[in-house]
Amino acid sequence: MIVCKFGGTSMANARQFEKVKAIVTTNPARRIVVVSAPGKRFSNDQKVTDLLIDAFYEFPKENAATVVIERFLSIQQDLDLPVELVDFATSELWTRLESSEGDLNSRLDAVKAFGEEFSARFFAAYLSSQGISARFADPQDIGLLMTEPSERAQLLEDSYKELRKLKDTTEILVVPGFYGYTQSGKLRTFERGGSDITGSILAAAVDAELYENFTDVDFVYAANPNIIDRPEQIELITYREMRELSYAGFTVIHDEALMPVYRKQIPVEIKNTNNPSAPGTKIVAHRLLTDRPVTGLTADEGFSILYVSKYLMNRELGFGRKLLQIIEEEGISYEHTPSGLDDISVIIRSHYLTPKKEQRIVNRVLQELGAEVAYFKHGLSMIVLVGEGMRNSTGLAARATLAISQTGANIEMINQGSSEVSLVFGVLEKDKEKIVRALYDAFFQRVKLRA
Amino acid sequence: MIVCKFGGTSMANARQFEKVKAIVTTNPARRIVVVSAPGKRFSNDQKVTDLLIDAFYEFPKENAATVVIERFLSIQQDLDLPVELVDFATSELWTRLESSEGDLNSRLDAVKAFGEEFSARFFAAYLSSQGISARFADPQDIGLLMTEPSERAQLLEDSYKELRKLKDTTEILVVPGFYGYTQSGKLRTFERGGSDITGSILAAAVDAELYENFTDVDFVYAANPNIIDRPEQIELITYREMRELSYAGFTVIHDEALMPVYRKQIPVEIKNTNNPSAPGTKIVAHRLLTDRPVTGLTADEGFSILYVSKYLMNRELGFGRKLLQIIEEEGISYEHTPSGLDDISVIIRSHYLTPKKEQRIVNRVLQELGAEVAYFKHGLSMIVLVGEGMRNSTGLAARATLAISQTGANIEMINQGSSEVSLVFGVLEKDKEKIVRALYDAFFQRVKLRA
Repeated sequence: MIVCKFGGTSMANARQFEKVKAIVTTNPARRIVVVSAPGKRFSNDQKVTDLLIDAFYEFPKENAATVVIERFLSIQQDLDLPVELVDFATSELWTRLESSEGDLNSRLDAVKAFGEEFSARFFAAYLSSQGISARFADPQDIGLLMTEPSERAQLLEDSYKELRKLKDTTEILVVPGFYGYTQSGKLRTFERGGSDITGSILAAAVDAELYENFTDVDFVYAANPNIIDRPEQIELITYREMRELSYAGFTVIHDEALMPVYRKQIPVEIKNTNNPSAPGTKIVAHRLLTDRPVTGLTADEGFSILYVSKYLMNRELGFGRKLLQIIEEEGISYEHTPSGLDDISVIIRSHYLTPKKEQRIVNRVLQELGAEVAYFKHGLSMIVLVGEGMRNSTGLAARATLAISQTGANIEMINQGSSEVSLVFGVLEKDKEKIVRALYDAFFQRVKLRA
Repeated sequence: MIVCKFGGTSMANARQFEKVKAIVTTNPARRIVVVSAPGKRFSNDQKVTDLLIDAFYEFPKENAATVVIERFLSIQQDLDLPVELVDFATSELWTRLESSEGDLNSRLDAVKAFGEEFSARFFAAYLSSQGISARFADPQDIGLLMTEPSERAQLLEDSYKELRKLKDTTEILVVPGFYGYTQSGKLRTFERGGSDITGSILAAAVDAELYENFTDVDFVYAANPNIIDRPEQIELITYREMRELSYAGFTVIHDEALMPVYRKQIPVEIKNTNNPSAPGTKIVAHRLLTDRPVTGLTADEGFSILYVSKYLMNRELGFGRKLLQIIEEEGISYEHTPSGLDDISVIIRSHYLTPKKEQRIVNRVLQELGAEVAYFKHGLSMIVLVGEGMRNSTGLAARATLAISQTGANIEMINQGSSEVSLVFGVLEKDKEKIVRALYDAFFQRVKLRA
């Protein structure tokens, strides 16, 4: 069985519904279809989910709510679906908007989930109208259970047992993504990952042979197309590589959403609803190594470095741990901690920091840890080379550092650990783009020219 | 004022006493002289301190004790010192060996310190016999106070006030290194650093213009002479560089011993008693950068790596800190923690590990931290390039990694942090020597050829 998920642009209008129908019916293994709420039809368009949030918060609610209903109305009309569907949607939307049951989060969740629910209801109706054996599968009915608190809702692990029964479906099940229900019957949306995570959960539950994630891109690029002109496509990538590339928000699929399929090592395909014959990008647990050690590269800005130094630091049992504790007590995650004998640096995303937090951290490091030097430096970029083949590739670090040095830029930090699939460079933000270009040339263009 | 310290080989016999006298009297600023116990006169010789430890533990004690007295007797005879000195030494040694006062550590300390004390007494007597204004300065009399417990004794910080008075001495004070007294009058030896630390403390106490550390080498080498044939000498080095070079036991002066002078930023000179006109190696707080970015390189074997991986690790606040806590709870210091997004490695000196400890750590990491992968790998070498000029040297990492890759060796780990004076490579032990040679060629030979 294949579980396939279609994102917002794939469900944006009747024309897209037709494409999705064509994709779903091409392969009889596609029996679980997870859908998002209708997304943008053109670049300045509004997503249905954003309209729903507007409707929830705004007074009068008519404007946004009317636009939502218009979107569904045009799908109903273009596809000749029963008009009762639109009446049902309208009354349901207003019931949710005017409800005073539950706390604010619960009511917002119910409104937000409306988009996915009716996207699925309309698409199931469309498939049926075309003589295809299909039905809307309510998350509550199939047993997609969520944790009770109205914040940071997550799947209840117990759900898997019940969801596994979907394995036996003979008809196509159209499941709305993004939400489920608590055991007491309250609707809850996933905090992150939206419909991606619903698809991933269902794929894991039924031990799908494949989880297809249909979006509006043909593949995952090997580098940021805003910096590199027409970068290469990645056809095959491992979970670990995909995850490392997400360092800089690189990925087209939310990495937390991948967790359920990752655990079961179910392959994932990123495909384009608008160009389904393109091979797409396949994410797998393991792959054969090619002669190209680097699969992709990514870069992000907005990093700071906390530099700490103390004579004989490395003789002190627990120094590094205490330093990380101080940072943790400020609620701050860190990225890397390169260290010498008497100094240690902590790389932190700058958005975690405020002048007050920095001052508190510096003071504590000086006073409690007896450091001689402690200060923050800002404006760093992290550039990450990713590839399963890197760890066996002699001379890779030389090739990368040579490419960087030829740009005239200085390397502020290098972080490479044993058995890893990544090599991280810290550089000044101003040097980021030229280094990305230099590294891309070193690891991709050169191969191209040879071929 | 200059504080000068003479090591064991400098005090090994009458001939060496003469050399030390010549050095001390050459410069009237040398008014505090710290001495070690007589050391080896030839490579198979025994150090007096080792003989004293033998005498303490062995029965009968006569053999070793007699050899100790013989050593002092020959100095007395060769230098025509009063014979009463030897009588005094003999009776004092036996008093200490036969004492039953205090615990084992205290009694051992008293016996061990005998070598330094009588080295100083004999040398002071020798200077006086030559008409030089000099006297033996007992650590108790000058106020070199130690902590009370008989283990891990350290200087009492309060000592500095009293020791500062030595500033005003007009005669040469000969101070035995290696020990002091508690406030209740018990003799305590320094846990580490021996006479080096006494000299460093006194230099700091009197705000010496210079701390001279006389040994039996002309200078500190830029690399290990057992691997590199006649490596270059280092004439000027900063404290930080010296400290980083000590990563692999490289240094000729114990790095903890440098702490007191480091704090006061007093320059240190490493010189050779047997060749005092050689310029030696000067350790300073700051130096002008030359066109050579790398000051020295050092390498050590016997490292292990703990590799830990978990999907979405870097989203977990506190993961790294908890990992270090587990390692700390086994009493283990770590060296570096290179990390990717979903994996972190901890570099540990292998001597800290036992199969049981490794198993406990791996189990806890898997169970308590929910890691997917955790294992140890052994047999790593760390190779460290050290230089104040490195952080401003574009292309340095490229030069180093290129040199390594040309040996065909793989780099297991790279660790470079911002503002540091070192660049650390983890490699397999079997590759250590060829990489040291390649790096030495890249950073030293090339410069030589150009010149």
